[in-house]
Amino acid sequence: MVLPVTTFAAGSQPEYEMSLIVHKYGGTSMGSVERIRNVARRVAKWHAAGHQVVVVPSAMAGETNRLLGLAREISPQPDGRELDMIAATGEQASSGLLAIALQAEGVPARSYAGWQVPVRTDSSFTKARISSIDDARIRGDLDAGRVVIVTGFQGIDPEGHITTLGRGGSDTSAVAVAAAIKADECLIYTDVDGVYTTDPRVVPEARRMAVVSFEEMLEMASLGSKVLQIRSVEFAGKYRVPVRVLSSLTDPLIPLDEEMVSGTLITFEEDEKMEAAVVSGIAFSRDEAKITLLAVPDKPGIAFSILGPVAAANIDVDMIVQNQSVAGTTDFSFTVNRNEFARAVELLKREVIPAVGARELSTDEKVAKVSIVGIGMRSHVGVASLMFQTLSQEGINIQMISTSEIKTSVIIDDKYMELGVRALHKAFGLDQAPAAKE
Amino acid sequence: MVLPVTTFAAGSQPEYEMSLIVHKYGGTSMGSVERIRNVARRVAKWHAAGHQVVVVPSAMAGETNRLLGLAREISPQPDGRELDMIAATGEQASSGLLAIALQAEGVPARSYAGWQVPVRTDSSFTKARISSIDDARIRGDLDAGRVVIVTGFQGIDPEGHITTLGRGGSDTSAVAVAAAIKADECLIYTDVDGVYTTDPRVVPEARRMAVVSFEEMLEMASLGSKVLQIRSVEFAGKYRVPVRVLSSLTDPLIPLDEEMVSGTLITFEEDEKMEAAVVSGIAFSRDEAKITLLAVPDKPGIAFSILGPVAAANIDVDMIVQNQSVAGTTDFSFTVNRNEFARAVELLKREVIPAVGARELSTDEKVAKVSIVGIGMRSHVGVASLMFQTLSQEGINIQMISTSEIKTSVIIDDKYMELGVRALHKAFGLDQAPAAKE
Repeated sequence: MVLPVTTFAAGSQPEYEMSLIVHKYGGTSMGSVERIRNVARRVAKWHAAGHQVVVVPSAMAGETNRLLGLAREISPQPDGRELDMIAATGEQASSGLLAIALQAEGVPARSYAGWQVPVRTDSSFTKARISSIDDARIRGDLDAGRVVIVTGFQGIDPEGHITTLGRGGSDTSAVAVAAAIKADECLIYTDVDGVYTTDPRVVPEARRMAVVSFEEMLEMASLGSKVLQIRSVEFAGKYRVPVRVLSSLTDPLIPLDEEMVSGTLITFEEDEKMEAAVVSGIAFSRDEAKITLLAVPDKPGIAFSILGPVAAANIDVDMIVQNQSVAGTTDFSFTVNRNEFARAVELLKREVIPAVGARELSTDEKVAKVSIVGIGMRSHVGVASLMFQTLSQEGINIQMISTSEIKTSVIIDDKYMELGVRALHKAFGLDQAPAAKE
Repeated sequence: MVLPVTTFAAGSQPEYEMSLIVHKYGGTSMGSVERIRNVARRVAKWHAAGHQVVVVPSAMAGETNRLLGLAREISPQPDGRELDMIAATGEQASSGLLAIALQAEGVPARSYAGWQVPVRTDSSFTKARISSIDDARIRGDLDAGRVVIVTGFQGIDPEGHITTLGRGGSDTSAVAVAAAIKADECLIYTDVDGVYTTDPRVVPEARRMAVVSFEEMLEMASLGSKVLQIRSVEFAGKYRVPVRVLSSLTDPLIPLDEEMVSGTLITFEEDEKMEAAVVSGIAFSRDEAKITLLAVPDKPGIAFSILGPVAAANIDVDMIVQNQSVAGTTDFSFTVNRNEFARAVELLKREVIPAVGARELSTDEKVAKVSIVGIGMRSHVGVASLMFQTLSQEGINIQMISTSEIKTSVIIDDKYMELGVRALHKAFGLDQAPAAKE
């Protein structure tokens, strides 16, 4: 079947070809009848231009919280299977509403719950992982000229129980559906217009990146640039799905060629168009706390002896640094989320220090983590030292350092965080539009 | 597996045996967290007494209307398939909440959406009919000692689309589940404590019936005693499922033997315990309008010529009376719901009368229907004449009469309706408790 192709500029040919696109809309974008109508108008525009479109919507804003609130009112520790049964209804309702809104725009549309596709997952209720997605049903409807709506956030386990992917899971659903149907691009519509070089609330000169590699995005997502759920980025990298983050707040009828180049494209291709910057962005996190065990006897297995009980208590550890051994003892430092600091310290005093021995426990509840991230760091020397120099010039003391191939992170006193981020943003030239390599 | 049997009166043995029971709770009974807790307490009591229990809950009161309201806000004529997708979420959420409430009472429980059982239906979206129910999954959980919760109101069609049974469909779901698992009884918990000899608001002496036959219930349901959805009664009759209507407003922990004999049992067995009354109840409906075509040429096919267009316009016709032909013409009367009266008259004037010919159109918008219903009428003569005599003594003119094997209905001026109902209730001795036949 040939879909009608509409050009938006009179007399001109569209530059793009007919393609297969996944749209994902968050809870805010689906938050009212009027907003659902706007989503329908935007999708209708893509459909009218000849694209095949699959839409993955979240539940209407507030709905999932309302449902889970009822469950928690009944029982403080509700059963995961039943929670998923309840929570999954939010996306099912919003998907049906979007189908009706599209039909009202004259666009044939059909919605499917996760189990109808099916989106298969494991049985980890409330935090399930997608194992496979059958594309036959989706393809059948696309070939019949329909827009297909697939509920985000949910699937079905091998025993036929409903599962959910956990908070933010709709991003992962969208990328997974895009991978399954081999979509040309997965568009994540959200309330920001893209990924920035750092948080514009801290650095007003922060710039939206036109392109970012998925490795960089992974490092930034995990460091607190909360644009996309990190699992969705992992998925995109694994299945090489180009993902674009863009705004759902623009006029839904803006010309398609404008929309197609807006936002930030997260790509797995390091092609000629990639920006030339060595460092792409500055990520940071305020809610860190540092714990150091001084003069721990340095023997094999010491790291596990310290961190094993911490992990068993479900406390996430972020940075870990162990200094070189001096006279048979070593200093062992790590950071945890500030919310879990008290629990971690209590655990160390009660269980760990009596077992492993340590001269002293030194803690700092008010530290921040600042990271520079960039794929260009792979092939450029001196990036870390420019970071250290910049911070030193501002009189900021570095307490811990940790590096990966495309990221360098430091722990500093949290009162210097904004100052450090601004200085680094300027030092790495992120306030100026980069020149393309070509 | 042997379930624990608890006796409620110390030292005594329970009179009942372990049985398989279906409970159905309406939207009001499920209307808040506290009410869901009460439902759980009641179900837990039955479970603790050794019964296997399947529960069919409605959506929380107001929820279905809220969801369908959103859909109608988006489109005045929303697609049926998508409406069902949306509406079915109400029962799915309430079922999950009830499972959590039961677990909080220490009762193992698991909820299933219609498609998970599966409850198979045809593809008539928003008014689907159940074709079959697979009992394997339910039985597996019952045998494992669990209470099983099955969403009311919904199923899955042969193509895997979600369907709903239409308003009040949860009653039908419950009876159908009871039929599928061969339950000993289906208990419909509602906000009334049973079926009455007539509406207590009209006749304060109206009595709750302990037992009523399903044929009588069918006649009463269709005549306006809106305790149970009529399709559920048909289902109960077809599959010989004993149904009991009882109150969900009693203390959930009242002794089980009290609860087991409360309400009204709708039975297909005309056994010795059936009440001896000739007439079981007086049903009535206010919202009737009468239409008469005078002097219609009497020829074959005349009834279809008149009522065919009416049915095609989706106007429900209730009573139909055609008098004997006089001089080649006949008078043809029927009643419609008062809401559809104007549309029916307009249709007759525009289409029917020009086609069939009639001397005159006579209408009365303010009539009521009063019916006496009773299985005993089969074997008792003179029942109808006592009805006519009673009304005559009150000076009430009878405008139309229609009879079936267990029912006699009359159309009267609606201002005499209450008077007629009270007089009939007394004349047939319904204000006194009947003597059992035995």
